Amino acid sequence: MRYRFADRLSHAPKSFLDEIFRVSADPSIITFAGGLPSSSLIDTEGIRMATCQVMEDDPSAALQYTTTDGYLPLREFIAARYRSRLGIPASADEIQIVNGSQQCLDLFAKIFLNPGDYVGMERPGYLGALEAFSLYEPVIETVALEDDGPDLAAFEKLIRSTKVKFFYGIPNSQNPSGTTWSQEKRRAIADILVDSDSVLYEDDAFGELFFDNRPRLPAKRYIPDQAVLSGSFSKIIAPGMRIGWIFAPARILKQFNIVKQAADLHSNFFCQKILHRYLIMHDLDEHIKNIVGVYERKCRLMCDLLDDLVPQVTHTTPEGGMFLMATLPEDLSSRAVFEEGIKRRVAVLPGLPFYIDGGGTDTIRMNFSTASEEQIKEGMVRLAHVITDLQKT
Amino acid sequence: MRYRFADRLSHAPKSFLDEIFRVSADPSIITFAGGLPSSSLIDTEGIRMATCQVMEDDPSAALQYTTTDGYLPLREFIAARYRSRLGIPASADEIQIVNGSQQCLDLFAKIFLNPGDYVGMERPGYLGALEAFSLYEPVIETVALEDDGPDLAAFEKLIRSTKVKFFYGIPNSQNPSGTTWSQEKRRAIADILVDSDSVLYEDDAFGELFFDNRPRLPAKRYIPDQAVLSGSFSKIIAPGMRIGWIFAPARILKQFNIVKQAADLHSNFFCQKILHRYLIMHDLDEHIKNIVGVYERKCRLMCDLLDDLVPQVTHTTPEGGMFLMATLPEDLSSRAVFEEGIKRRVAVLPGLPFYIDGGGTDTIRMNFSTASEEQIKEGMVRLAHVITDLQKT
Repeated sequence: MRYRFADRLSHAPKSFLDEIFRVSADPSIITFAGGLPSSSLIDTEGIRMATCQVMEDDPSAALQYTTTDGYLPLREFIAARYRSRLGIPASADEIQIVNGSQQCLDLFAKIFLNPGDYVGMERPGYLGALEAFSLYEPVIETVALEDDGPDLAAFEKLIRSTKVKFFYGIPNSQNPSGTTWSQEKRRAIADILVDSDSVLYEDDAFGELFFDNRPRLPAKRYIPDQAVLSGSFSKIIAPGMRIGWIFAPARILKQFNIVKQAADLHSNFFCQKILHRYLIMHDLDEHIKNIVGVYERKCRLMCDLLDDLVPQVTHTTPEGGMFLMATLPEDLSSRAVFEEGIKRRVAVLPGLPFYIDGGGTDTIRMNFSTASEEQIKEGMVRLAHVITDLQKT
Repeated sequence: MRYRFADRLSHAPKSFLDEIFRVSADPSIITFAGGLPSSSLIDTEGIRMATCQVMEDDPSAALQYTTTDGYLPLREFIAARYRSRLGIPASADEIQIVNGSQQCLDLFAKIFLNPGDYVGMERPGYLGALEAFSLYEPVIETVALEDDGPDLAAFEKLIRSTKVKFFYGIPNSQNPSGTTWSQEKRRAIADILVDSDSVLYEDDAFGELFFDNRPRLPAKRYIPDQAVLSGSFSKIIAPGMRIGWIFAPARILKQFNIVKQAADLHSNFFCQKILHRYLIMHDLDEHIKNIVGVYERKCRLMCDLLDDLVPQVTHTTPEGGMFLMATLPEDLSSRAVFEEGIKRRVAVLPGLPFYIDGGGTDTIRMNFSTASEEQIKEGMVRLAHVITDLQKT
């Protein structure tokens, strides 16, 4: 049998994400390769209580079909949090619930991209976005990511070319680099965009996880009709529920809703209700403060151990999030470190899949949220051995 | 701000599904327009118990990220049920979990369709499939659905044209018509397909809901490498969990898995675990027998009332599922019956959105699973008034 698959599949990058999850499942490997929030910080008792309440209240409604847009009280909670936390006008009408941020990537590309259309991204750029966008066969143009955000001159040149339908970035504690756009660059990026027809897509998966607990204002604040924000409960409550959202201007949301309905009718209603119940029963800020405290300690520990054990490796110094990016000495390849690491039972992620132009040969992404402090200590010793030994050969 | 949306959006049919859900939410309207399983038949106590057990066992794992393919024990359960119930060889490796059958429609189209490719469907055809497929800009060719399945001559002509990438149908208690393909036609359809490069997509959302509790064998049994089956827990356990699956040959599943990962990483893991726990704790056959008994009584009641109150209306006589299709007298339009019905507080669904060629002007889809027997009695009286009054004007 000959299957006549669509051309778009030839554009799909070889996926690493599932591979990462599989490696992460081997308990003998200490993994810095994945992107899981810490399992020990999931408030299972709080979620259990919220679940019990949903099951007591009106369980058959929670288990029935619902509308595509999502559970209104949950959308109202999200909008209220934008207002109180970031001072941005936001209403539930501008929020659509999706299956985690990843679904935003797919559906947003679906409403904007014809084959051959141009998309802008950071370099390095988020792997999950590359995977989602690629299936719509765009031309992806990248702008170098500096310590404080995209290279402004390159960004302006790209936007002025009028080519890109949208520019996608992760302004807060980016995956994979761990860098955060400065407030000045956000303002400048908004100023550049305002005269164009390009939309800004700010993926804000990590905005709640700044170590100083201080929110950073999205560029959407300056160009509300020209930017969308996506958010997720995966990093602050529980990824297994697959609940995220998009916050978008009404005219964009209308199209988004059509493709969401065609994609899967609506997101899991049971978990939307559980999440909402959890959120109104608990102090989310306290919960996040707890997560952030742990992540900050782990991040510092990882950075310190890198500096102490392998000073020949340089790295970013994240202000939050779950990742940092390390640059290897010139003679070392990230793939060799990955492969040798697996043998020594420590996993890092080569930078390769975050570049569409063959870059990332000398960078590795390191996750500091999943492993315990003990594991980080042991894993960094293993990694130092890997790097030192590879440099000898 | 001018948004430069993708061309595919202009192919999206005006959606009715969300409208249906909204109408269904008005408690003063007795609705036969929706497609909800009966809320009173959702085993909320059983699901509560299963949920408690998942939360006791290893809650943080259930709330964490997982692999794209889905929870292995759930996939094993599904495969085992294909083997025991239908006698089809099936293994967990051939099963991928998705967010309800609707996501199968989207992702299956995504792996097969380039713009301009041909797809075959029944006429009338399932609205949700039309919505999902249309966004990939195919040419949709339809084959008339007769009482016992697709018109074989037309089907053969379509397949022999070598045009269609796949043919999509709902062989068991189709939505919207309520008809079931005969075993002879399934065999004939497989025989026609076997010499072609066209894949058969059997959407089996209702196969567990035959009133005689007797399974019908899918055509995939005859052409295992050339057919996929999709299934769903929405109609037999709970739609709000959004858990369905595709059962497909390995080479198709490999591509499907790539687009599933790009679409949303994986389906809700928490609910996958709850569902699996529920399934191993309960007698699914008994539960289904209970549902089917209720649906059969409701279906008979609706058919009898149609015959008694509006004998000028003809209708299909379903062997299972949740829908029947009624054909109005020639002088009546389905849209008029819908609009007048809303005024009289009874909702039916005009056949229009199930046809891509302007058909359905004289047919209405009627759901018998959602309303209670009392509501069916009252609603049918209202509907009879609507029809009789419209005929007088």
